[in-house]
Amino acid sequence: MPRYKMIIEYCGTNYSGWQYHEGETTIQGAIETAIKNFCGQSITVTGASRTDAGVHARGQVAHIDLNYKDNRLSAFEIMKAINAHLQGKSVVIVKMEQVVADFHARFDAAGKYYLYRILNRSAPPTLDLDHVWHIRRPLDVTQMTKASKYLLGKHDFSSFQTTGCQAKSPIKTLDRLDIEAVGDEIHFHVEGRSFLYNMVRNMVGTLALAGHDKIEAESLQKILAAKDRRAAGPTAPARGLYLMRVMYE
Amino acid sequence: MPRYKMIIEYCGTNYSGWQYHEGETTIQGAIETAIKNFCGQSITVTGASRTDAGVHARGQVAHIDLNYKDNRLSAFEIMKAINAHLQGKSVVIVKMEQVVADFHARFDAAGKYYLYRILNRSAPPTLDLDHVWHIRRPLDVTQMTKASKYLLGKHDFSSFQTTGCQAKSPIKTLDRLDIEAVGDEIHFHVEGRSFLYNMVRNMVGTLALAGHDKIEAESLQKILAAKDRRAAGPTAPARGLYLMRVMYE
Repeated sequence: MPRYKMIIEYCGTNYSGWQYHEGETTIQGAIETAIKNFCGQSITVTGASRTDAGVHARGQVAHIDLNYKDNRLSAFEIMKAINAHLQGKSVVIVKMEQVVADFHARFDAAGKYYLYRILNRSAPPTLDLDHVWHIRRPLDVTQMTKASKYLLGKHDFSSFQTTGCQAKSPIKTLDRLDIEAVGDEIHFHVEGRSFLYNMVRNMVGTLALAGHDKIEAESLQKILAAKDRRAAGPTAPARGLYLMRVMYE
Repeated sequence: MPRYKMIIEYCGTNYSGWQYHEGETTIQGAIETAIKNFCGQSITVTGASRTDAGVHARGQVAHIDLNYKDNRLSAFEIMKAINAHLQGKSVVIVKMEQVVADFHARFDAAGKYYLYRILNRSAPPTLDLDHVWHIRRPLDVTQMTKASKYLLGKHDFSSFQTTGCQAKSPIKTLDRLDIEAVGDEIHFHVEGRSFLYNMVRNMVGTLALAGHDKIEAESLQKILAAKDRRAAGPTAPARGLYLMRVMYE
């Protein structure tokens, strides 16, 4: 049966996350329902990342196995048909292509790129409501950048792992953590092969403490060494987080 | 009485435009109501630009005359107080400062910068719903750029003027019209001293025809020369338009 790779965009605000749960409004569930409504088949959509409630995606990746009318439709036509059934759901397939039968969206992922957006000004968001973490008090980008350098590379990230994490090992390699001021926003660009549960949001929440001078940049070393979630800062809210891209070899 | 200049951001989706009209939900009306609720005074908010229903702003400018408690509050404190009364309205004052008593938001404006966003892909918008003009068929940016050059400079823009325009003269000078591909979006950066009614949206709607090869780039000359609205293309929808900045000498 043909396997398809899909690149998916969604606004996570009104969803309880990616992964299907009985009785909950999930993104996986929305796509599976759309496929069912389009071709009558009950198919499992396998996503690269199980994003949490409220987290957005510009480039989630998933795969499906689908044989519709003896494979007479192109991947693009199937995509358009599924999108037609996703109307008004704030979820769309942006790109779809047939891939080799053993391609696996989650297991084959070689890296992930996340963006985290903070709106740093007195006035609350209007156009970006539910799409940024609004922080009124000015954050010191230089201090946050200094602190972020301690997180780069291979570490035991237990201090940045929310309980409930299914990862076998808390040792991860952080390949990129760039912090950029963009108008009245601050953007965190985060890349790595894989992440622990809530790791990006826990890092951003901790770096914000450094940005408010509540902890010193150097203390990130101690926080990592503690290997204890209580040593780090709070979890930044889901609404500022975007899964931008999943990389494959 | 002290005069204040305000920079205002709003999502225009649920508004029938900037300008106050009895019985309609307007941005000017929302701010005037917030001021009344804050300090009990009925004050007119004078805006630089009367944006249409559905048009957004990152940098609308307005002025007010306000004396509250003998001017004991700073402009920043007044801004925060008004913003508190704008909660949930998708309108905020981003910046507020006291200015000279004869500053006029509209008459003193030396230029305006508009951004127009097109989402150019098959899949409908999710995160950017109501914030872009969605066009499925690929637009040729090179052709649109070529066509746009004919609009730069001083011209009679009657062909790009929707009836109902209050401008004394249809002769305007277009200082900038840059077209930029940004991911799957196309951005139009438009600057000039002043514009005719719907002029930016009428230009974008016409350039989109060039982008779809329905008209030649060179035909923009003829369209201008016709001085007739029927010679140009359709009006691009309001939801893609942002008033980004108003410039003063």
